[in-house]
Amino acid sequence: MKVGILGAGQLARMMALAGQPLGISCHCTANDAHDSAAGVAELYPINIEDAQALESFMSTMDVITFENENIPDSTLNILEKSGKIFPGTNAIRIAQDRLFEKTAMQDLAISVTPFQAVNNEADLQRAVEALSLPCLIKTRCLGYDGKGQYLIRNHQDITLAWEQLSGQSLIAEQFMHFDFEVSLIAVRSSNGETAFYPLTHNIHRQGILRQSIAPYEDIRLQQQAEKIAETLLTHFDYSGVLTIEFFVKDQQLYVNELAPRVHNSGHWTIEAAVSSQFENHLRAILGLPLGSTAAIGQASMINCIGSMPDLPTILNHRQAHYHTYNKLPRPNRKVGHITTVNADKKVIDSLANLCNDA
Amino acid sequence: MKVGILGAGQLARMMALAGQPLGISCHCTANDAHDSAAGVAELYPINIEDAQALESFMSTMDVITFENENIPDSTLNILEKSGKIFPGTNAIRIAQDRLFEKTAMQDLAISVTPFQAVNNEADLQRAVEALSLPCLIKTRCLGYDGKGQYLIRNHQDITLAWEQLSGQSLIAEQFMHFDFEVSLIAVRSSNGETAFYPLTHNIHRQGILRQSIAPYEDIRLQQQAEKIAETLLTHFDYSGVLTIEFFVKDQQLYVNELAPRVHNSGHWTIEAAVSSQFENHLRAILGLPLGSTAAIGQASMINCIGSMPDLPTILNHRQAHYHTYNKLPRPNRKVGHITTVNADKKVIDSLANLCNDA
Repeated sequence: MKVGILGAGQLARMMALAGQPLGISCHCTANDAHDSAAGVAELYPINIEDAQALESFMSTMDVITFENENIPDSTLNILEKSGKIFPGTNAIRIAQDRLFEKTAMQDLAISVTPFQAVNNEADLQRAVEALSLPCLIKTRCLGYDGKGQYLIRNHQDITLAWEQLSGQSLIAEQFMHFDFEVSLIAVRSSNGETAFYPLTHNIHRQGILRQSIAPYEDIRLQQQAEKIAETLLTHFDYSGVLTIEFFVKDQQLYVNELAPRVHNSGHWTIEAAVSSQFENHLRAILGLPLGSTAAIGQASMINCIGSMPDLPTILNHRQAHYHTYNKLPRPNRKVGHITTVNADKKVIDSLANLCNDA
Repeated sequence: MKVGILGAGQLARMMALAGQPLGISCHCTANDAHDSAAGVAELYPINIEDAQALESFMSTMDVITFENENIPDSTLNILEKSGKIFPGTNAIRIAQDRLFEKTAMQDLAISVTPFQAVNNEADLQRAVEALSLPCLIKTRCLGYDGKGQYLIRNHQDITLAWEQLSGQSLIAEQFMHFDFEVSLIAVRSSNGETAFYPLTHNIHRQGILRQSIAPYEDIRLQQQAEKIAETLLTHFDYSGVLTIEFFVKDQQLYVNELAPRVHNSGHWTIEAAVSSQFENHLRAILGLPLGSTAAIGQASMINCIGSMPDLPTILNHRQAHYHTYNKLPRPNRKVGHITTVNADKKVIDSLANLCNDA
């Protein structure tokens, strides 16, 4: 079985590693022969906006998937026609635009933070009135790791935010004083079968995920999250992994963001779930039965941001699982992660210190 | 870090997969571009008896290891000179010859089944007298999966055995009516650290390993096995994984065979130990700290012999981990394995039936 992946970063890399034991080979479009997936997947130097090259690439693949939902519209049209893209373009189009995403959620009676579309400075003024301060203004598309956002704390900030972000399609969102953040990794096979991992508790700093702890055990929240996921999976007639990021406030879930793909907050599933998110995504898009999503222990996943910590120093902790993405160091770049299962808090804290990008 | 592996079969494949997350890349000498490790390691079409090609290959590697101890003597000499071969050639030379192996064990006061060297038919007659019937005659070198053996049940068999095996260096062994078979996967880092996995209970049929069940919990046997392993690791100043196959009779261990490498009976460690035998072998030969060898559940590993069972049928068992080696089907060939952790006996039996080579 041949799976084509648009992109050759760490998510493609970990999918390719998960596919190998099953006899699933991954083939990635790449910018560079040294992209993260090199060595575990076949890399193709294809610009996905080149229709002819893309069609030729797709023609030899059984299915196509991606590691980043920010796919240009012209490419989406070609993918759609092929009938080989999983998850489908309906989910991608919604997930790549915060306004579409929140509107779709509202239509499905799923709780989100209050929001307003912003097309001009007057809209922004009105949004601030309606949502009250503080509020967030974000680009509708392409933001990640806290990029393309501005936190408006007072009325003077409105002009500053507009200066920085105008020229792009924008959305204003109420700033929610949430209690904490969780995510749900859901998966649906194209054979119709669905499964859900236990909730993950996510800790961000400066807009970047630092640590994920799973399972976050709360039966009521788990049920709420799975119900929302069921609604979305059915609505999109979805195939593959769908990640839902939630704010939790007063034991209520509010969807913050959808990712129609495997996700950083699911990396713990490699060691601490029976089948990982990567393996289950591949199974799902190929219409295979899903593997068990049960956790086998209490996992802690720590992101390595900026650069990788020294290998022997990490491995001195006998329970540490080291994952480098073979990426060059760069400030704020996710270059790897460390997972432990059933480790003491002291061990986890020590590893987190070693991974600190300071 | 670059690890050179002599051979590109399934053991090299699984080492390469284990190395990737640690940033360890594996480079294999291969007979064929479609060898099992293709796609996860870089393959080099090198004949390891070609001194110049081998030296050039080694020069770009940090360390060299292998997946099969049957390495020609001329190659061993070159490896030895390089100072990069782990485990060392002393262990390889012993392990590739049953007579050397058993003699070494005897010298170290480690129990083995009684044996005699056989250089001619008269030796064989004398050995049968000394060891009593039934007894086994085996080639000293190159035997595996029950090949190169003859079971002598009566005096007429002596001539038949001689006709079949003469012309090769031989050893006669007493046929032990053992109770069952276990193996120990031991590991020693070139930094001196040692670790042992829990014992594995192995079930053979027609000389081929069919199923491994681990941990086999018996504190006395575990201690006996670890003591023997300690003796051997120290004796050889060993680096890497060392596998010891034992017969168990009346709660006593008798070494049947050494394998100076990762081993089929340790495949369960991929899912059911904190760190797998493959990862720990790489850590050991690179002088890195070892990962925990603790089991995280009760594992059952079933070999797929001859051909792979149908993927969706296996995956219908949500706990099954499918491992294909991407090898062409062939009678009696190990082409993959299936592992479960904490599965019911009914599930394991059903999977074993599906993997049956009939």
